Amino acid sequence: MPFAPIISLLTDFGPKDPYVAEMKAVIVSICPEARIIDISHEIEKFNIRMGAFTLASAARYFPEKTIHVAVVDPGVGTKRRPIIVETHRFFYIGPDNGILMLSAQREEVRHVCQISNSSLMLSKVSKTFHGRDIFAPAAAYLAKGKQVSEFGPEINNYMVPEFAKPRMKGNELLGEIVHIDDFGNVISNVSTEDLKRIGAKEGIFLDLRLKEKAFRLRFCSTYGDVSVKQPLALVGSHEFLEISVNQGNAAKKFKVKIGDSIRLSLC
Amino acid sequence: MPFAPIISLLTDFGPKDPYVAEMKAVIVSICPEARIIDISHEIEKFNIRMGAFTLASAARYFPEKTIHVAVVDPGVGTKRRPIIVETHRFFYIGPDNGILMLSAQREEVRHVCQISNSSLMLSKVSKTFHGRDIFAPAAAYLAKGKQVSEFGPEINNYMVPEFAKPRMKGNELLGEIVHIDDFGNVISNVSTEDLKRIGAKEGIFLDLRLKEKAFRLRFCSTYGDVSVKQPLALVGSHEFLEISVNQGNAAKKFKVKIGDSIRLSLC
Amino acid sequence: MPFAPIISLLTDFGPKDPYVAEMKAVIVSICPEARIIDISHEIEKFNIRMGAFTLASAARYFPEKTIHVAVVDPGVGTKRRPIIVETHRFFYIGPDNGILMLSAQREEVRHVCQISNSSLMLSKVSKTFHGRDIFAPAAAYLAKGKQVSEFGPEINNYMVPEFAKPRMKGNELLGEIVHIDDFGNVISNVSTEDLKRIGAKEGIFLDLRLKEKAFRLRFCSTYGDVSVKQPLALVGSHEFLEISVNQGNAAKKFKVKIGDSIRLSLC
Repeated sequence: MPFAPIISLLTDFGPKDPYVAEMKAVIVSICPEARIIDISHEIEKFNIRMGAFTLASAARYFPEKTIHVAVVDPGVGTKRRPIIVETHRFFYIGPDNGILMLSAQREEVRHVCQISNSSLMLSKVSKTFHGRDIFAPAAAYLAKGKQVSEFGPEINNYMVPEFAKPRMKGNELLGEIVHIDDFGNVISNVSTEDLKRIGAKEGIFLDLRLKEKAFRLRFCSTYGDVSVKQPLALVGSHEFLEISVNQGNAAKKFKVKIGDSIRLSLC
Repeated sequence: MPFAPIISLLTDFGPKDPYVAEMKAVIVSICPEARIIDISHEIEKFNIRMGAFTLASAARYFPEKTIHVAVVDPGVGTKRRPIIVETHRFFYIGPDNGILMLSAQREEVRHVCQISNSSLMLSKVSKTFHGRDIFAPAAAYLAKGKQVSEFGPEINNYMVPEFAKPRMKGNELLGEIVHIDDFGNVISNVSTEDLKRIGAKEGIFLDLRLKEKAFRLRFCSTYGDVSVKQPLALVGSHEFLEISVNQGNAAKKFKVKIGDSIRLSLC
Repeated sequence: MPFAPIISLLTDFGPKDPYVAEMKAVIVSICPEARIIDISHEIEKFNIRMGAFTLASAARYFPEKTIHVAVVDPGVGTKRRPIIVETHRFFYIGPDNGILMLSAQREEVRHVCQISNSSLMLSKVSKTFHGRDIFAPAAAYLAKGKQVSEFGPEINNYMVPEFAKPRMKGNELLGEIVHIDDFGNVISNVSTEDLKRIGAKEGIFLDLRLKEKAFRLRFCSTYGDVSVKQPLALVGSHEFLEISVNQGNAAKKFKVKIGDSIRLSLC
């Protein structure tokens, strides 16, 4: 490679503790030339869905061959398997609990291998911190040029998350909230394609139900299309339908959280 | 350049969301050799003044030719322009809403160009995330050697922020609070030069009014000059007058916030 | 060196303010080839013990010759000395207040020098921010190849922290809480060796007292050994005894904080 191999990191470890630094220290000890870019370490504890959404959002902007490491891992120490996923664009490393697949499945999945070769782990593997002892070394050895097949056997029964896909029920489109960003924007799993399916275009009004409360909102192209503190619907930069408040906090206004249902139809 | 071009990043995007990572991914995709250093991503949402102060504080410690990208951008998607500012020391990239100018104006402003050349943006520019789609690519192309003039036409009517400069009223110096740091130190826009103007020297006492409440504080050279939990005035490392509490939180003690007025005179 | 010299940073400066960026800017201005890895900047303000524990936890995973800079420095501006510690593995730079020694003492301490050579500091040293003005330049000059002896005279009377070591009282082992991680895991200073001394093995039950409240907990090998929301004792990845709750927050459940006492014995 002409430039440094890139490793991205996403965890729920938070900014206070030494855990993220320990992963980075392990990586640079094995592969000093690796470039590490943080995606986020403030995923809600054990919230695999939020981790998967955040990974899927950011991953596609990275250069080809980036090694994405994602560790939101409530099952650490149990029998859940550590895996490497190779797609036509990227590598993904993490626990086999669904966190990698929302992003990987949008690409062409070529190989999924269980990480079982202990010569490519830290010499002492703890039962509580596979991020440092298994996933960080795997990323570093992959960055150094190891092949995916060297880490362990290929598997086919890897876990695919059930994160609901929007579906039609009568004239309503049924989805769910998959993320609430730091501005309080409420992001659904309703994509641009789903919106086209029901004939929604910018400028029209949408009838929405969030947790059974009904609202009518304008489908806008930008926050500034409504007055300050007014709510709106728009397709955010992630290409999913967002419910937002111009210069305000939609999640607080509508009292919703990740996993809540959203229904919408044309007026 | 003998060493990697440096790009600094300052935003109000927070640490949870993928937005900062998306900017970095775009930068390294275009300019793999760029070195990225975060200034802060926890500027208060939409607080242009806090962003401008933080940028001004940190920028001057960076090497010459650093490309400073600052995105606190409540007007994203409206007609506010994306700009590049070239000074005799640095480049600044961000929205034309004043955030860049507090820092840039302390240097010799040479060129201000509107970023309008779409071949130097992401191929699809969203209306909600110019940080990733316009500002990050601009920084990366600049780091790769593009000239400022290639990004768009030079402009002269760029916005200069109104952040008040301290002024005399009778024997009082009138300023305002421009920042409260993480220790609770209350930082004003009253500079070392302003203090000289009224004859203030370390060791004397100052009569202060914060939000109409009057205090008398010693003008010290270091926190340890007063007892633990006692308040003091001093010139902080930013060369502005700070109101602090030794090992305590001045903002809580005095109940002040950014934008509040401060008046001071000699006893 | 074949690869970039590594500088790790640990402070209590928090993520909002420009202070950490100013340290990094100073480092890359002096030593552009240095690689900087953050350990944490969210150590509790002035909590030297938490800083020392976090540094000790992370440091040992870094490559040999890493330069660890740790700045939790309530005494900045007073007579406490800035020091460099050279061990057989690493360099440590920070204030002489104990923060460096918990980690350094686990290695072979070779030299401790007071940093007093002003030609290896910023030209203007503030009284309030030695992290930027003294410690960051020292790390950068060390990374550039300066010898420890060039920074100032060797000293022997450096401060060694009193962080209690576990001791026996009758059949009880007496320790204390040295850290509470972001998951709420309660980490003591009771090491694997201490546990061996009292004959504790995984699978047995331990009688514990936290702040005079008595509990009986199973000594497990992994969180999943108990049901969700159930408490357990285990040796965490740091090789110290942790009190945890499977997928829950032990610090909240047991209402403990750093510095609280812990006593344990076999059932």
